[in-house]
Order: sequence, then C-alpha cells, then structure tokens
Amino acid sequence: MRLRRRGFGIAVFAIALAGTACVQREDPADALPSWNEVASKQAIVAFVERVTAENSADFVRPAERIAVFDNDGTLWSEQPMYFQFAFALDRVRALAPEHPEWATQQPFQGVLENDLASVLAGGEHALIELVMATHAGTTTDEFAAVVEDWLETARHPVTGRRYDEMVYLPMLELLAYLRENGFKTFIVSGGGIEFMRPWTERVYGIPPEQVVGSSIRTTFEIRDGVPVLVRSPEINFIDDKAGKPVGISQHIGRRPIAAFGNSDGDLQMLQWTSAGDGPRFALIVHHTDAEREWAYDRESSIGRLDEALDEAATRGWAVVDMARDWRAIYPESVR
Amino acid sequence: MRLRRRGFGIAVFAIALAGTACVQREDPADALPSWNEVASKQAIVAFVERVTAENSADFVRPAERIAVFDNDGTLWSEQPMYFQFAFALDRVRALAPEHPEWATQQPFQGVLENDLASVLAGGEHALIELVMATHAGTTTDEFAAVVEDWLETARHPVTGRRYDEMVYLPMLELLAYLRENGFKTFIVSGGGIEFMRPWTERVYGIPPEQVVGSSIRTTFEIRDGVPVLVRSPEINFIDDKAGKPVGISQHIGRRPIAAFGNSDGDLQMLQWTSAGDGPRFALIVHHTDAEREWAYDRESSIGRLDEALDEAATRGWAVVDMARDWRAIYPESVR
Repeated sequence: MRLRRRGFGIAVFAIALAGTACVQREDPADALPSWNEVASKQAIVAFVERVTAENSADFVRPAERIAVFDNDGTLWSEQPMYFQFAFALDRVRALAPEHPEWATQQPFQGVLENDLASVLAGGEHALIELVMATHAGTTTDEFAAVVEDWLETARHPVTGRRYDEMVYLPMLELLAYLRENGFKTFIVSGGGIEFMRPWTERVYGIPPEQVVGSSIRTTFEIRDGVPVLVRSPEINFIDDKAGKPVGISQHIGRRPIAAFGNSDGDLQMLQWTSAGDGPRFALIVHHTDAEREWAYDRESSIGRLDEALDEAATRGWAVVDMARDWRAIYPESVR
Repeated sequence: MRLRRRGFGIAVFAIALAGTACVQREDPADALPSWNEVASKQAIVAFVERVTAENSADFVRPAERIAVFDNDGTLWSEQPMYFQFAFALDRVRALAPEHPEWATQQPFQGVLENDLASVLAGGEHALIELVMATHAGTTTDEFAAVVEDWLETARHPVTGRRYDEMVYLPMLELLAYLRENGFKTFIVSGGGIEFMRPWTERVYGIPPEQVVGSSIRTTFEIRDGVPVLVRSPEINFIDDKAGKPVGISQHIGRRPIAAFGNSDGDLQMLQWTSAGDGPRFALIVHHTDAEREWAYDRESSIGRLDEALDEAATRGWAVVDMARDWRAIYPESVR
C-alpha cells in the first residue's frame, strides 16, 4: 500500500462507491458481492454447491464441513509488520515505566528509541524476548483485557484505521457464506491464540473455541483463594508451517475439507487439507494490490509466498489475485 | 459392581423395567427421565432455567453456555481399570507377535502372562512405557481405526458389554438436555484425546473438536508424497488435575459455566469453572452403587474422590448419589 492518510480517504470513498455499484448490478442472492465474477469466486461457489447438494456423490455431511483460515494476510492485513508485532512494540512502550533497565537494554532500547533496525539485528532471539516480556506474566483474563484495550486505542500507521477494521470484506463475506452452508469456520494462525480470541467472535463470527494459534505455556494457580491461569514466558506451541496440521489435529481432531491461506507458512495446512479423501478445496490469497492494500510475494520477509504459489499451480488450488478479484478490500470504517 | 454375567442379565432386566415404569409415571416433557426427583436433578434443572430465561438477571447468551464433562467415571465407567488401560493391554497382546522380545521384558511380559501385579510393580514408568508402545508409532488415521476396531471386539470383563455401552444413561440425557438448551458440551478428560475422538460423536453427540484430553506429540511428514501425522512416543500434554483448566484454556478459550466430574482429578476444573462471574454450576458423580455399578471414593486408586468431595460440601456443589439418584445406569444394550 502506497497510500498515506489522504490516499486512505480516497480509498474509503472508492470502496463506498464500489459497494453502491455492486448493489445495483449484482444478483441480490449473491453471497459474495465484493468478489468479481472471476475464477476464484466461481471455484468457491462450485465447491460449496458440490458438497452441500444432497443428491451429489460428493455430499459432505455438515459435521465434516470444516473450513480453516489463516489469519495474518488471509483475513486481515499483515503489513508493514504483523499486527501482533505492533502490539508487542506498543506494550514495550506501555510497560517501560515499570522497567527502567530497558532504556539501555536491547531489544527494548531499540523499541523505545524507534530504532527498529537495532531490534531486528537481534534476530529471532530478540523477537522471542520481546514477545515474552509483553505477552507473559499476566493472567489469561488480564491479557485479554490488554489486547482489547490496545485494539480500542491503536491505529495503523498507514491507513489510520483500527487494526480490526483492516479485515478483508470479501473474506468476511466468504466466512458468512460458508457458515450459511453448514460449514464450521476455524482460524489456524501462526499468531498468538490468546491475542486473537478476545476479538475473533466480534469481528469474524468465529468463537474462541474455533481459534487455533501459537501459544505460551499457562499454569493453574490459586492466588489468595482465587483460581487463575498465569501466562509463563515459555513457548508452548508454534502453529506455523508443519505445526499447522499438528494444531489442526490437536484442536479439531478431523481433517478440514477447505483451507485458506496466503503464504508459505500455510503450505502444509493446504497440503494436509487437500490430501484427504473426497472433495477438498484450497485457496491462496495473493497480495497483488499495491494501491488498495500491498503487493508482495516471493521476496517478502513478511508473508512470503513462494513455494506455495508454485504448488498452487501444480495442484490446481484457487489463487485470489487481490487487485483483480476483489471489488473492495476493507469494510467501511464504522467508528 | 459385584455382578457377574448372570447378575448382569438381571440388571438389564431391572433397567428395562425401570424404563417402562418411568414412561408411565413421569412427565412426558421431562428431559431427564432416568433421574429420580432428588436434589441433584432439581439443581440441574433450576440452573438451566435460570441461565436460559431471557428476562432473568442471570441470563447467559448461548455462546457462553459452555459445559465441560470429565469422561472416565463421569460419562462412562472406569472400573475395574480405566477402559483405555484395558485397550493398552489388548494392544500389547495384539502387537506381541511383532515383538518377540516382549516375552521376557517387563512390563510387557507381565501383560502377556496376565500377571498385572508385575506390571503395576513397575510404577508410573512401566505404565508410560505401555502407553507409548501401544499408542505411538502409527499415523493419526491408523490409530483411530485401531481404536474403532477394538471397540467392536472388546468386551468388559464384568458386564460382558461393549465398552461404549457402559456409558451412563442419565448423563446421556443430561448432555442432550443441555444441548437442547443452547449449551455447547465438551469432554475434558485425563484420557487420551485420540482414544476418545473416534467414538464420542456417535456415543455422546460430542464432535472431535469438542474433546479435550491428554496427548502425545504428533509430527507432520510427507511419506511417499502423502502427508501424514505421525504419533511420537513423547508426552505432549497431561489433561488432569491442574492440567484441566489449562486444557480448557487452550482448547476452548473461555471459562465454562458448568462442569461435571467424579474424582479429585476434576477438582481444579470444578474450581476454575465455579470461580467465574455470574451463575456457575458444578456437579460430582459419587459412585455409591455396588449393585448396579461400583462403589468407591476416598480410598480408591482409580477415580479417587476425597478432597473434591469435601470441597463439594463446603462450596455447595451438587453431588449425585448414584444408587439413590439414578433410576438406570446404562442404556439398554442395542447390539
């Protein structure tokens, strides 16, 4: 996205226009009005009709209609950095008064001085240190409140939007369309499970028990007679790449029939889903829209899409060309 | 249970009679016909009415109506040994031809010679060795098939029933009653998650994604071009005692409003559930019926109920006196 604040206003105006236009020219029964009439949309609709037609050899009973969605870059944006990383940086700033030692200690010093290069120079170790310092030490209830407070106040540096207003309107329509057709929709994300759960029901209609993600360890304690779950600074599970089918197995216990992703981190989830018996559907969101969102794929450090894009071509997975396929990107800002 | 085969026939006859009797004397709208009109049943019904009445200050929206159930001793029997342990012993016997070394190697030798004392003498280490030898090394799909095959052929040594016919009829009614009232029912068991998932939907109406349990580690592999999840001989998570609130947090992501257990292994789950804001319900199944099932509590090595029974009295949790409260124990055998 090359838009700045002013461009953002234009984009919202364009989306509003597109919204009006589509009401006029589309089938009112169309459940996916923000999708242009292209191959990706046709493939989605054909698959849903195929598995829901009771007289079809490919009929799938509702209990087996499991659809899994990556989150970052698939349901909401992930540039110029994963939104959860923006949250971690904001948490460092918020917690700094309690940690005077951070003023001279990397990676915290880099965050406080807005010197991200120093932070990133610390590599994975620095990132884990940031995550643990900002995601652990609270109870689960306290952490959920921190996330919700952050969403209320934080604004995206490019669009000026709330982060939870940078979800993709076409994907919101797709989630609703699948659920109307008896699917159970799950998130399977590399992001933190407890970072997503406070808001996925409100924003995506996906309840906490249908969110799978990375996690740190929690332990049960009785504090002053009150049972609490405390978040410990220790990795419990990384729900990314080969971890995604494992997370699906742990949480869902059966193989999805449809999977939606946007990066190489989703490849194994797409492979696992596609390899099941009977009708299967896999789709990749390809970020091709530098005007309305961002354009990136094989060379990006965030949301790299390289191997999975090749495999999509080989296996005939659907690929969304965001610039071409989506009539709108974000919902109208409602706040 | 002191019944042997002959006594079992009498018990089935008695249950059939009780079933007929209750149709005649009960309110046809009664959702819990196998429950006598006692305090435990009244407490259940009062709670459900309280949280579902839309004009009630205690109304709970359906999405928050999460009910969690222990499995062993709460939904099905657990004597004279946990049913999953019987499965493990049968697996040792089935796999023995591939493992000639087991003939002289404990704990396997003890199993093959029906010398359980030798097996148990090995303590926890021997039990873990048995579990890993019989639960790991397969893919997840293969393991599910093994469990289903076992349920088809194995019979309980005392009742002669299929193990999945030793589920409690009053609890099946309770699960259905809660779901009819908008509750989402979960299992939260110390048993193996993949041991339960193949049959919980068929037997309890609880789908795999609503089963929480102990697990071993699985890893994603591509074998001859086919993606598989392989079960590794390494503990991933123990869903017992203080692990139960952790398992609830990981899988469900919100606090239940109702919890059902039968042993000290459920204490922390009951504490965690009860300590939430608003209306909460906790119930303990007390095994008091040596005639129709088993009678055990404070001194039992399986399903010990001691601390949780004391806490139930202190906190006013409902306690089912199985002999007094339940009109029937098992459903009529249908096979």
